[in-house]
Amino acid sequence: MITLQCPLPLRDYPNIVMGHGGGGKLSRDLVEHLFAPTFDNALLAPLNDQAVFAMENARLAFTTDSFVVKPIFFPGGTIGDLAINGTVNDLAMSGARPLYLSAGFILEEGFSLDDLTRVVYSMGAAAKRAGVQIVTGDTKVVEAGHGDKIYINTAGIGIVPDDVNISAGNARAGDAIILSGAIGLHGIAILSQREGLRFDSEILSDCAPLHDLVATMLAITRDIHVLRDPTRGGIASALNEIADAGKIGIEIDERAIRVPRDVASACEMLGLDPFYVANEGKLIAFVPNEIAPRVIDAMRAHALGGDAAIIGRAVAAHPGMVVARTSIGATRIVDMMIGEQLPRIC
Amino acid sequence: MITLQCPLPLRDYPNIVMGHGGGGKLSRDLVEHLFAPTFDNALLAPLNDQAVFAMENARLAFTTDSFVVKPIFFPGGTIGDLAINGTVNDLAMSGARPLYLSAGFILEEGFSLDDLTRVVYSMGAAAKRAGVQIVTGDTKVVEAGHGDKIYINTAGIGIVPDDVNISAGNARAGDAIILSGAIGLHGIAILSQREGLRFDSEILSDCAPLHDLVATMLAITRDIHVLRDPTRGGIASALNEIADAGKIGIEIDERAIRVPRDVASACEMLGLDPFYVANEGKLIAFVPNEIAPRVIDAMRAHALGGDAAIIGRAVAAHPGMVVARTSIGATRIVDMMIGEQLPRIC
Repeated sequence: MITLQCPLPLRDYPNIVMGHGGGGKLSRDLVEHLFAPTFDNALLAPLNDQAVFAMENARLAFTTDSFVVKPIFFPGGTIGDLAINGTVNDLAMSGARPLYLSAGFILEEGFSLDDLTRVVYSMGAAAKRAGVQIVTGDTKVVEAGHGDKIYINTAGIGIVPDDVNISAGNARAGDAIILSGAIGLHGIAILSQREGLRFDSEILSDCAPLHDLVATMLAITRDIHVLRDPTRGGIASALNEIADAGKIGIEIDERAIRVPRDVASACEMLGLDPFYVANEGKLIAFVPNEIAPRVIDAMRAHALGGDAAIIGRAVAAHPGMVVARTSIGATRIVDMMIGEQLPRIC
Repeated sequence: MITLQCPLPLRDYPNIVMGHGGGGKLSRDLVEHLFAPTFDNALLAPLNDQAVFAMENARLAFTTDSFVVKPIFFPGGTIGDLAINGTVNDLAMSGARPLYLSAGFILEEGFSLDDLTRVVYSMGAAAKRAGVQIVTGDTKVVEAGHGDKIYINTAGIGIVPDDVNISAGNARAGDAIILSGAIGLHGIAILSQREGLRFDSEILSDCAPLHDLVATMLAITRDIHVLRDPTRGGIASALNEIADAGKIGIEIDERAIRVPRDVASACEMLGLDPFYVANEGKLIAFVPNEIAPRVIDAMRAHALGGDAAIIGRAVAAHPGMVVARTSIGATRIVDMMIGEQLPRIC
């Protein structure tokens, strides 16, 4: 018998709450106080969205994500698209060329085979688009009332070029922070579908594979310090994680961040902050200031980076803290969420 | 819009039933008629429990499994042990040395952090025992009533030695079929816990990592044709899959297969056939007949192969079919299950 001494700063939660899966502070508690110390190893320790390691002569990236998005079909995508692109993107954020994916399905008894077929077709199409192969898989079925139609886990392997070294811990004071485009589309697309909201124009998820955009950036410079796709927890959580890992401060200019009008209206109506809303086809890059303009030019020439812009800088002041200059010139602290705004967004 | 034409021979099931996750014919239908044709690629096509491919100068094995076992704590193990050993074993069945694992958690709102801690500790201990590192992970939370405490996906990567080529398709007529020990322990341990059954002595799951036993066998000969761990669907399903993939017939001798007395009693009482009951620490090997005795000697000297024995032969007659000689000298066909005997066994 092991003696159980829960190592978590529980924040007064003896049981799992939705926020433990939200990508905010509660998620971080689980990782930092339970998973990382128990699975204790140097490859896991950087807590990036993927592990990078040498294997014989290859440098590999390896990542995993489970997808529990609700609804499974939404404007701009399906849980299947998300399962492929999410894992492709986690590989791409290490600079890797994604190659092989696994697919693990947990199906709920009673789920329709027509819907399963639609999901699987969308995975096949997304894999083809991203140039990856699904080479191994597994299917489990759970009783009705113990699942929700379909959950998908994808793990992925890619090859990292020898001269590329991208990690949240590599952020340096002075780095320019680039955001590849408009924020909030995925989260609001899911939420509007879930809640039956209507807008002037339909808001589509931005779900897309980002490895080709990354390759375009790496063709300009190998000196990219950090890449992160701001999914769960939005750009606020991604920036906080980078500030934390890189021991730098971050200053962003709210006016430089593009929030589409319908996303802004939806957020206002629902009391959400778009900085915390999930994206599935955007990336944040930290690059040396002097090469940022050339990187941005290259990104703007790519279909997925047309609105790339510098949104701020890494600074030596206030390490671990993200501050935003607002549109009226004031400064606010952009903290990490405790739990989450929108459960089951991915 | 894609036009949905469900390509499944549905066996009259328009919706997912428990048997689609049972490792029998229904599972096979999903794989052969939906997943494999849609994800169409040469690495997936052999339908082994892992994909093997070259990457730069390395030959890698890659596999995934989701674990939904109920209850999550059972005699002889936890869902965490199972998640590590199951994936370690799927790698080992290609002859690979398992190295890196991912862990994806789907937690149900309300799950106790103490129980989560116990599961995660058991994963850490199992990983250490197997000599693998959990290098990347992900956590999602679903609402109460949409999960069952905890589901775990593990994917894994290992290195396959250059001169090893193990695949279900490599079975040859004349091969001796070796089974590493007694069958039925995992399935009956789960079932007895679930149903509150009591036996003379407690039946413990045989959950264990098999890669070291495989390394011991490979030290005797590189000429191992097939390895398979008979989990879901038991030895009957594993043998049927091998007969199918290798286009050979299989003849087994029931008297050579060790069924512990308590397992036999439980099966008789519950109307189960032990050939279809899951194991989590046993393997089946197809090796050239002339080297089988030396392989068995080596296995018997290993803690996990003490009861290794030849249980039958691959034959040229009746390809794709498994027949058993019974203890009274009669012959019966050992078919693949349609659905499953015991849901959520792993």
